[in-house]
Amino acid sequence: MDQPITFAVPKGRILDEALPLMGRAGVVPEAAFHDKANRALTFATEGGDARIIRVRAFDVATFVAHGAAQAGIVGSDVIAEFDYPELYAPVDLGIGRCRLSVAEPVTVASQDGRASHLRVATKYPALTRRYFERQGVQAECVKLNGAMEIAPTLGLSSTIVDLVSSGQTLKDNGLVERATILEVSARLIVNRTALKTDPRIAALVERFRALISAGAKAA
Amino acid sequence: MDQPITFAVPKGRILDEALPLMGRAGVVPEAAFHDKANRALTFATEGGDARIIRVRAFDVATFVAHGAAQAGIVGSDVIAEFDYPELYAPVDLGIGRCRLSVAEPVTVASQDGRASHLRVATKYPALTRRYFERQGVQAECVKLNGAMEIAPTLGLSSTIVDLVSSGQTLKDNGLVERATILEVSARLIVNRTALKTDPRIAALVERFRALISAGAKAA
Repeated sequence: MDQPITFAVPKGRILDEALPLMGRAGVVPEAAFHDKANRALTFATEGGDARIIRVRAFDVATFVAHGAAQAGIVGSDVIAEFDYPELYAPVDLGIGRCRLSVAEPVTVASQDGRASHLRVATKYPALTRRYFERQGVQAECVKLNGAMEIAPTLGLSSTIVDLVSSGQTLKDNGLVERATILEVSARLIVNRTALKTDPRIAALVERFRALISAGAKAA
Repeated sequence: MDQPITFAVPKGRILDEALPLMGRAGVVPEAAFHDKANRALTFATEGGDARIIRVRAFDVATFVAHGAAQAGIVGSDVIAEFDYPELYAPVDLGIGRCRLSVAEPVTVASQDGRASHLRVATKYPALTRRYFERQGVQAECVKLNGAMEIAPTLGLSSTIVDLVSSGQTLKDNGLVERATILEVSARLIVNRTALKTDPRIAALVERFRALISAGAKAA
């Protein structure tokens, strides 16, 4: 019998929106998956030949890029940050929408087109460097794993690059959006080699593609 | 009036053990700090001239190394991984004890002294590379932010380097410890420049040093 397909999903916000889509595509986690006290990382699926792993968003991309998971769901921010050649993102799921933005304290004038060097606190150093390079600005990135929004107040950086949804977190911290680097939504991702060699992955992509296409027609 | 001192503490396990020590050193967070629904990142202290930020462990080191926080508490694993020259760790707090270990599936023979190349999943790529270099082994590190223990089962890596406390997580995942890279405990850390220029930081270090020394005598 074939090895089960491993499907990687991120902890957190995207997951609640992803589960109904996964269900319609036939990827239904066992009941234990929904038990918040359960600290397991690997779960069976109902009647399927897949198993589900629930890991951090950045790790979803890493597992799929290395073929340790064959498919998964992750934000386009993570896909763009890593830029893994082995990762293919064939379907935009239209969920988890937000944007990756440049923000600065509301009290300072915009740096755009003036500074040639900036210090930027971000979880996305690769995307940040690429964005500012295109503007002719050298961005010295301080990598943070969270709490980007307090960096300017504490003098860690003049600028942050962070995910923005409603904008309330920025506002609460006296920051204002200066530019959008990337419009973000969650994508179905697959490992390119697995897609070529395992017909179950191609079938999975087709099921997600069909249901997104049907949703678009219904809307 | 002077700027308040910013004291950085990590979310999670170490914090419960650190709070009594901080209290005896005069760093007592306001009541809101203990409200689990409170998503604020910055807190006042009771009657003190300090503020407390609660961030991820790796970010504690980054804030203090850059002088955005002047002092903090973090595990020696994080200090060793970054090896920031601006970070000084004068007091071993004797809490948060665990170890950073190499682990492999129990079903494979030890790689020690045999392989010249290993793929290792870890949150600590710098420490891992340094450790294996000393053994004459080239370690290709796959950086994960969590869930290291499922990497061997899924074929992501032959080996992991992860924090081990009771060893139960390794056991649950069919892994066995092969070597200890580092004995870990939480340390008081300070920014070197702040220590030289702000007498409040030197006083803070002395208070922590005195209470640890008193504790050692009492024990």
